[in-house]
Amino acid sequence: MEFLVHIEVNWPPDGDPDERRRLAEAEMARGKELAQAGLMKRLWRIPGRWANWGLWEAPDATALHDAVASLPLWPWMTVEVHPVAVHPNDPPGYMS
Amino acid sequence: MEFLVHIEVNWPPDGDPDERRRLAEAEMARGKELAQAGLMKRLWRIPGRWANWGLWEAPDATALHDAVASLPLWPWMTVEVHPVAVHPNDPPGYMS
Amino acid sequence: MEFLVHIEVNWPPDGDPDERRRLAEAEMARGKELAQAGLMKRLWRIPGRWANWGLWEAPDATALHDAVASLPLWPWMTVEVHPVAVHPNDPPGYMS
Amino acid sequence: MEFLVHIEVNWPPDGDPDERRRLAEAEMARGKELAQAGLMKRLWRIPGRWANWGLWEAPDATALHDAVASLPLWPWMTVEVHPVAVHPNDPPGYMS
Amino acid sequence: MEFLVHIEVNWPPDGDPDERRRLAEAEMARGKELAQAGLMKRLWRIPGRWANWGLWEAPDATALHDAVASLPLWPWMTVEVHPVAVHPNDPPGYMS
Amino acid sequence: MEFLVHIEVNWPPDGDPDERRRLAEAEMARGKELAQAGLMKRLWRIPGRWANWGLWEAPDATALHDAVASLPLWPWMTVEVHPVAVHPNDPPGYMS
Amino acid sequence: MEFLVHIEVNWPPDGDPDERRRLAEAEMARGKELAQAGLMKRLWRIPGRWANWGLWEAPDATALHDAVASLPLWPWMTVEVHPVAVHPNDPPGYMS
Amino acid sequence: MEFLVHIEVNWPPDGDPDERRRLAEAEMARGKELAQAGLMKRLWRIPGRWANWGLWEAPDATALHDAVASLPLWPWMTVEVHPVAVHPNDPPGYMS
Amino acid sequence: MEFLVHIEVNWPPDGDPDERRRLAEAEMARGKELAQAGLMKRLWRIPGRWANWGLWEAPDATALHDAVASLPLWPWMTVEVHPVAVHPNDPPGYMS
Amino acid sequence: MEFLVHIEVNWPPDGDPDERRRLAEAEMARGKELAQAGLMKRLWRIPGRWANWGLWEAPDATALHDAVASLPLWPWMTVEVHPVAVHPNDPPGYMS
Repeated sequence: MEFLVHIEVNWPPDGDPDERRRLAEAEMARGKELAQAGLMKRLWRIPGRWANWGLWEAPDATALHDAVASLPLWPWMTVEVHPVAVHPNDPPGYMS
Repeated sequence: MEFLVHIEVNWPPDGDPDERRRLAEAEMARGKELAQAGLMKRLWRIPGRWANWGLWEAPDATALHDAVASLPLWPWMTVEVHPVAVHPNDPPGYMS
Repeated sequence: MEFLVHIEVNWPPDGDPDERRRLAEAEMARGKELAQAGLMKRLWRIPGRWANWGLWEAPDATALHDAVASLPLWPWMTVEVHPVAVHPNDPPGYMS
Repeated sequence: MEFLVHIEVNWPPDGDPDERRRLAEAEMARGKELAQAGLMKRLWRIPGRWANWGLWEAPDATALHDAVASLPLWPWMTVEVHPVAVHPNDPPGYMS
Repeated sequence: MEFLVHIEVNWPPDGDPDERRRLAEAEMARGKELAQAGLMKRLWRIPGRWANWGLWEAPDATALHDAVASLPLWPWMTVEVHPVAVHPNDPPGYMS
Repeated sequence: MEFLVHIEVNWPPDGDPDERRRLAEAEMARGKELAQAGLMKRLWRIPGRWANWGLWEAPDATALHDAVASLPLWPWMTVEVHPVAVHPNDPPGYMS
Repeated sequence: MEFLVHIEVNWPPDGDPDERRRLAEAEMARGKELAQAGLMKRLWRIPGRWANWGLWEAPDATALHDAVASLPLWPWMTVEVHPVAVHPNDPPGYMS
Repeated sequence: MEFLVHIEVNWPPDGDPDERRRLAEAEMARGKELAQAGLMKRLWRIPGRWANWGLWEAPDATALHDAVASLPLWPWMTVEVHPVAVHPNDPPGYMS
Repeated sequence: MEFLVHIEVNWPPDGDPDERRRLAEAEMARGKELAQAGLMKRLWRIPGRWANWGLWEAPDATALHDAVASLPLWPWMTVEVHPVAVHPNDPPGYMS
Repeated sequence: MEFLVHIEVNWPPDGDPDERRRLAEAEMARGKELAQAGLMKRLWRIPGRWANWGLWEAPDATALHDAVASLPLWPWMTVEVHPVAVHPNDPPGYMS
């Protein structure tokens, strides 16, 4: 099942730049693992913000939660999950 | 450039079922054209509603508007466009 | 997977009382089928409104959509779906 | 009388991990007591967040308040209480 | 148990004045019955609007719903119910 | 003139417990004075929150402000004042 | 006591122009009466809308309601009343 | 003085197409007059909607209102006016 | 041109009382200057809050910004400016 | 492609005035570079706030993000990007 996930990162402006760099690197590394596991399929930056929209796939909301909450920046995140259903007009369904 | 587009269809509960059927068919046909033109890439139903999230791609907001406004159900739609930027952690960027 | 579903019924104050009665009966009949199929597990009325909260269970958002949209009053409904995950402190998980 | 209760935990990202662990354990212990007393009947995690939806039962809002406010994490919580009424189509009412 | 109830009446500006008069009279009559039954204890007009705040008392949300939904103008109402708990500083609790 | 007043207390989770106790006692004492002066007539706790709804009476908004702002916890409060008008169906108006 | 009152007029785009003209004239006439009675002190148009902000003065919310509800366009209005208190820095208080 | 103006056109989906065409033409003609008078300086379509953002210039809010309300589609519009002030970093101020 | 200005002061509950006193005095002094310059014409306290509504007059939004931003408490303020237009029914326009 | 960009600067009231001065100067310098590169075309102050509306132009949302995020005050900003499409009635399109 797919989910559209909206994530804002609430990093304090006066946060430690070293910790920020370290976390951002760990975030990218963990993101790659989630991508290789097929959980995170797409990620788009929301222009002007430290925020993103992602297309995730997981068996259910429990597995999705575990994946999102495993991100190193999770304690600083505000996350909104939009469950999505299959649409009969979804292009991959009839284009091949 | 990609866009996440949120569409609600405000069809009146007592609308004419024949017109609804005709419009839904025309919608699917036009949707296929937009998919084949590479404008509409994904479409997800929002569960419980006559509404969808779509992933669209267009050179700019003007071309996107023309594509969305060409849908037969457009006069009944409430549309919100979210422009998205490339994210360095987007899986297709490093998985191959 | 469980979902909390919020439903408002937007029936016009001057709607036909006969159609309303007929639809309410069909609604109850369809609701029983969904309950027997294990899709609708609980239903609570929101006091003061023609509205309810429901606990639904379905394999995914697509099956949930099909169940909700099969309700006879669906064209008059505004539906919001909240996906929920298993909580380690959920009482049925440790009470027996 | 049943209540649907929405709880967000606003724990600071730089909060003390030891206190967090201690509080989470106390929370689970207190939750079990409330479950055994029949006050907390179901608990669902909201995916992506430190938050939950719960189904609670109490004689009235005063007893409900006392139960919720007895949770060790209560000072960090934002709580919204939705009172719910019996629905004639509630499955447990006619399935046996 | 007490409830604070917010009611807006959405009467169409071009509604039939005779029906409006008839409904307003029936509303007052039914209101008196609910007051005498101890269900409706106070009613305040929201200045500038066809709307009110009320203090209601009922054994639970189900009984409250039945009372509110028995009002002749109910089909035109938008109702929001706020459950309230006993406060230790409530003046009637210590003034006598 | 009566007012419905909504008060949230934004006390920090890590606030000093001694100051909190001292303030809560002072709050109750000041509340009693306001009740005896006829300014605060009812007070209800909002379940699950450190918040209340109150029924206040004052000659005008200026006197109401002075009363509310005299509460010891006022610097931590978010207050919303709803002015209310006499309703012809208010039970005390015709029950005696 | 003074009130800031926000009024939107929800006149249907296809409403009868003659009725609109007649109502607007009656509105102005009634407005003058309210001004001469000292109830309506200032009126500002909200640019771009059929809407206004007004400064009203009345003994209490009940008298204010009666004044606003006496406007011929009242059935088409959405009204929000903001009670205001005397401010120690209010210029008329110290300028003379 | 400049204003950013947000306009939504609420044309009914089943509105008369001839009237719509006639109004759209009159709208463009009136728009040109306002542009030539220096009142409307820029106009951007909001993608996916019958809506626009405009940059207007007028001596004050009264003149702006008269300009906007002179548009033939005004009865169908929802308009929000954002007054803007000169910014010291505004490019035209230092580029020449 | 007149403006209705809504100001909230976000002073921290544990802020230094001496600085608060000093700022409040400076605020009143600066307010008097703005009043004498004809920029601030009325000021109303919002009951229950450290907040006010003001009626300001300035040649344009730039001059208004300079006036508001000159207030000593400005760094702690959240300000919303509502531009207002002359209304044909404004009492001072026809009462003399 | 053009974008309307809304920026709020959340500078703490007790922030270091020297850092603020240094950042504001760096902001102006960086703004000039973005203007000369044709990315930032207009900038308007939102009266009463440390906030602005800007008209930006960039090939796509990715380039826009890079430009906005290069501003020295970006860590303190809340940014909302509104993509805009070409409007057939845009004055520069037919005035020359």
